[in-house]
Amino acid sequence: MPLDPAEIQAELDRRRPGQSKIVTQRKEADEVEILSGVVDGLTVGTPIGMMVRNQDARSRDYDEIRDKYRPSHADFAYDQKFGIRAWSGGGRASARETIGRVAAGALAKKALRLLFGVEIVAYVETVQDLKASIDPLTVTLDQVESNIVRCPDPEAAAKMLDRIEQIRKDGNSVGGVIGCVARGVPAGWGEPIFDKLEADLGKAILSLPACKGFEVGSGFAGTLLTGLEHNDEYFADEERHVSTLTNLSGGIQGGISNGMPILMRAAFKPVATILHEQRTVTTDHENTTLKGRGRHDPCVLPRAVPMVEAMAAIILLDHALRQTPNSLTFS
Amino acid sequence: MPLDPAEIQAELDRRRPGQSKIVTQRKEADEVEILSGVVDGLTVGTPIGMMVRNQDARSRDYDEIRDKYRPSHADFAYDQKFGIRAWSGGGRASARETIGRVAAGALAKKALRLLFGVEIVAYVETVQDLKASIDPLTVTLDQVESNIVRCPDPEAAAKMLDRIEQIRKDGNSVGGVIGCVARGVPAGWGEPIFDKLEADLGKAILSLPACKGFEVGSGFAGTLLTGLEHNDEYFADEERHVSTLTNLSGGIQGGISNGMPILMRAAFKPVATILHEQRTVTTDHENTTLKGRGRHDPCVLPRAVPMVEAMAAIILLDHALRQTPNSLTFS
Amino acid sequence: MPLDPAEIQAELDRRRPGQSKIVTQRKEADEVEILSGVVDGLTVGTPIGMMVRNQDARSRDYDEIRDKYRPSHADFAYDQKFGIRAWSGGGRASARETIGRVAAGALAKKALRLLFGVEIVAYVETVQDLKASIDPLTVTLDQVESNIVRCPDPEAAAKMLDRIEQIRKDGNSVGGVIGCVARGVPAGWGEPIFDKLEADLGKAILSLPACKGFEVGSGFAGTLLTGLEHNDEYFADEERHVSTLTNLSGGIQGGISNGMPILMRAAFKPVATILHEQRTVTTDHENTTLKGRGRHDPCVLPRAVPMVEAMAAIILLDHALRQTPNSLTFS
Amino acid sequence: MPLDPAEIQAELDRRRPGQSKIVTQRKEADEVEILSGVVDGLTVGTPIGMMVRNQDARSRDYDEIRDKYRPSHADFAYDQKFGIRAWSGGGRASARETIGRVAAGALAKKALRLLFGVEIVAYVETVQDLKASIDPLTVTLDQVESNIVRCPDPEAAAKMLDRIEQIRKDGNSVGGVIGCVARGVPAGWGEPIFDKLEADLGKAILSLPACKGFEVGSGFAGTLLTGLEHNDEYFADEERHVSTLTNLSGGIQGGISNGMPILMRAAFKPVATILHEQRTVTTDHENTTLKGRGRHDPCVLPRAVPMVEAMAAIILLDHALRQTPNSLTFS
Repeated sequence: MPLDPAEIQAELDRRRPGQSKIVTQRKEADEVEILSGVVDGLTVGTPIGMMVRNQDARSRDYDEIRDKYRPSHADFAYDQKFGIRAWSGGGRASARETIGRVAAGALAKKALRLLFGVEIVAYVETVQDLKASIDPLTVTLDQVESNIVRCPDPEAAAKMLDRIEQIRKDGNSVGGVIGCVARGVPAGWGEPIFDKLEADLGKAILSLPACKGFEVGSGFAGTLLTGLEHNDEYFADEERHVSTLTNLSGGIQGGISNGMPILMRAAFKPVATILHEQRTVTTDHENTTLKGRGRHDPCVLPRAVPMVEAMAAIILLDHALRQTPNSLTFS
Repeated sequence: MPLDPAEIQAELDRRRPGQSKIVTQRKEADEVEILSGVVDGLTVGTPIGMMVRNQDARSRDYDEIRDKYRPSHADFAYDQKFGIRAWSGGGRASARETIGRVAAGALAKKALRLLFGVEIVAYVETVQDLKASIDPLTVTLDQVESNIVRCPDPEAAAKMLDRIEQIRKDGNSVGGVIGCVARGVPAGWGEPIFDKLEADLGKAILSLPACKGFEVGSGFAGTLLTGLEHNDEYFADEERHVSTLTNLSGGIQGGISNGMPILMRAAFKPVATILHEQRTVTTDHENTTLKGRGRHDPCVLPRAVPMVEAMAAIILLDHALRQTPNSLTFS
Repeated sequence: MPLDPAEIQAELDRRRPGQSKIVTQRKEADEVEILSGVVDGLTVGTPIGMMVRNQDARSRDYDEIRDKYRPSHADFAYDQKFGIRAWSGGGRASARETIGRVAAGALAKKALRLLFGVEIVAYVETVQDLKASIDPLTVTLDQVESNIVRCPDPEAAAKMLDRIEQIRKDGNSVGGVIGCVARGVPAGWGEPIFDKLEADLGKAILSLPACKGFEVGSGFAGTLLTGLEHNDEYFADEERHVSTLTNLSGGIQGGISNGMPILMRAAFKPVATILHEQRTVTTDHENTTLKGRGRHDPCVLPRAVPMVEAMAAIILLDHALRQTPNSLTFS
Repeated sequence: MPLDPAEIQAELDRRRPGQSKIVTQRKEADEVEILSGVVDGLTVGTPIGMMVRNQDARSRDYDEIRDKYRPSHADFAYDQKFGIRAWSGGGRASARETIGRVAAGALAKKALRLLFGVEIVAYVETVQDLKASIDPLTVTLDQVESNIVRCPDPEAAAKMLDRIEQIRKDGNSVGGVIGCVARGVPAGWGEPIFDKLEADLGKAILSLPACKGFEVGSGFAGTLLTGLEHNDEYFADEERHVSTLTNLSGGIQGGISNGMPILMRAAFKPVATILHEQRTVTTDHENTTLKGRGRHDPCVLPRAVPMVEAMAAIILLDHALRQTPNSLTFS
């Protein structure tokens, strides 16, 4: 397929620190270099290697955490596991690793669009208790990108912006929920039993930093309904195309897509780095306190939107390419 | 390790249909036969093959669904994917497949207990809007098994029982939330980036039939808090053993266990088979209606409790055995 | 696809002990029961479970080897690895496990034939220094099955039969080489770099008990030629169909099939169980001697022929189903 | 572990084009840059990223093959598979990809040596019919590196050198056999059934460009012996350490190492690029001829020696790290 590095860069810029006043002010250009797999602007079927060099690694910002575990960070768990820790910048637990996910996701989104007509849009749905009103059937990328919160409901976005600004001034942080829809997925993607489509999507999104929960379709709210209310009744139109009247299943039944839009939600906790003193222990396991400093993210959600899209796209493309061609039949 | 078939059977009996008045009355004995891997009551390190024959397959119960897709079942999606469907009993989308998970989970739970002192307990936390009060630090299997709902809060259990009874009489169904705790997991289990412990647990549990959501630690509720409220501060006791003051992380940070109890919650939708007429389509994609009949589960949660335990145990044991022995060091 | 248990059974009977005077006289019926995946004689796309119960396990035949390691058997290595050993009948190192491979291979061969027109034939090519003359382009299953040695060259087969008979009377054993051809494989199966078609075929066949070597195309003999002699020149016929003038590549170039017949050879050592006294050690690591007894295979090759076919078929079908459908293009 | 980029570079230099007069004279510096995983000269447990940029890609050398398939190269098969081909330099079928294998192998060899005391040495054993006399129990890296053929038998090396020189002048090419020994592997590495140690080693080495055959222990020659001659008898020394009197098994029995040196041999065909006119077809499938030109390898074996070591090391380390720690027992 045709591939322009600028397409990848555009996605990386949505994830990049310093892109707006409500995200961390670390200055990371995150410039991507395509190392392989593209000749004369066309992918040639070989692996596409991409590299982003870290240009703004200020190790001195991390001096204090060399000897102290940051609360609710992975420092302690990593040290317990590996006995050694790349403390500078958080090592592998740093959300910097999501650059690779977003770069790969840019490719997956493009392939899904060109090969299958599938479109994936993620958006900020809540920040703390502030809830946006969004229609996943019609929401567009332009609406999402119309403000720096990446919330396509302008009114809610304005309130969220105020909240995040306030929280940033307080040196505190907030979390929220990101919604994501995949439109145009045909019926039949997914696998029975273990590799159900919602299970693979769940794993991919739960592997994002700060993600603590995942829902498909009605999710936790669906547990309040009865079967009579929750069931998605089928109907056929005049061309015998089958749809459901409701979509509480979120486009997946028994692990396999049913042709309706796939609906997901992911919970992101408030980021752990805050500019307040908190109890913690040293690497020698002595009690102490630690106060975050430097350039922190008051709310990870605006930057997590492209990450969620990326993970959804990668999983969907993987399942799309597993489909056995219909031409293979025993007739 | 020593292994008695009765241990496996005991777990299967917790999952079995017909075990109480609030689950499906299908009579499936679910008797397990151990085919391999055990000699003189000891496992010998070779694969443990187990078989449960389906003794009560009444295909005639499924006659009507041969030609109609049941709403919110996987029938339609399977037909779209495979072009052929084992319609009798739901085929691979039938929850009967969870027999294998529970049998394997019985082994994993035992190995975790004997090798690592890890204990896993799941329980019904909500049925619709009825919410139990449960302390995951102390809840026991005996408390869970003290009533047929498998809710360790006796007062809530009684209310849930009434609700399920009522729903069963109405030919309707309800869902709810299952909580699960793993106590005794040492710090250091899990992997960075993609195979984070919560991601693998999430995938495993989201692959269970009817599961629509998964949370670890504070989950979706955690998005309402600020970082200052949400962070788990560390402290060391006199033996320099490190714990956290709170456990909103749910025992996992950055994908790796931190030594605190691992806390999970899973949302189960109301089961789709209900004794009410609903709109649907035929396999020829013509509009029609369908009314469930026969022996349905008004609430899948009591039987899903051992399934959640099983999946959690399998994932935890898998990660436990991936640990590199400390003896391998470059000193 | 249509599936009759008798088809599986026919392949198992080619592998079965006691099938002729030149193989072990253990009486194992090896009757297969199909547990799942087939409804009314048709596979329905769900996993096909098959079971063969071991009916003639005479543990007393193995009494002596409880405490002694048989030379060139896996007993010692298993004990070193696992610290426990299923000594009765050789445990997992017993060639009995190949029943499962042959059963799966029967399915794979049938699917390859019906879906792709691919035909796989293996045959005994040498027994010790006795070499048959076989044309892999034309050899048929009937020719292979025309004698109990499974060598399609009748003259060589007669000599091999005499040799094996003599060796059996001496209580000794012999090895040899099995050739295998896959005809009808289209160009384009395989993968670059690590999962090259010859690499996957090699792994599968080297995993068979007693296999010590694997070649594709010219193999070791090809190292005696120059590039000028070894290169397979291409030519196109009037329909622009491309073939090679020679086939020293064995149908695979750069890990990917080129449309020519795939040619493989596998070396099988003389089986280790012989009726002669040999030096060995006890499980307490004291020197002793051991003399095999009971029902041994003087030559494993006739029974290994269906195993090689099975492994080749399984790998080829796996690669066949990985092909991306041509309909997925970015045009 | 301590890691100096120079260690990786030293291995890459053994594989590098232009290193001596008997290999291709392409000038590729193959300089490695370590991108991640090493801090202050120590690996920190995170992935070690390495990059080698291709500095001397002369695409014009490949102009003619844009429209013609080179005999016995992967050009045709790739085009059939992918419908597109990175023709410049052979694309993914180019042996340039082995840079990555050799770099990873350098790490694996070091870890095997430091953690387990395992030493791996490969060497050129034959070039065409010229056969060296080598004792795998004592051969050293220094002996291998003492001449540009990488044959530790000086007399044979001299003859091989003459042969390769002659062949180079003729614009032709030759193949041969590389032997490889792994000394110090303890008993117990490997897996039963499918992932037997020899099967994994075989796959890894058969995946190298130009490799057409693989043997372990006695290999094809072992098929000429009887069981009585072939069996490796065990004996115990005074410390009850168990060895075998012979090592025709090549250090592996039933897929699992037995503590004896692991012995392997790999056949490499004469390289396909020769400076002679040969028949072939165009990408339009019309008959034509092609004569190689430019900088070809008359004999790939000297450069393949570090590749074989690398693949053996990677597989052995993988199996080494799969061992369950002895501390996990059910006592």
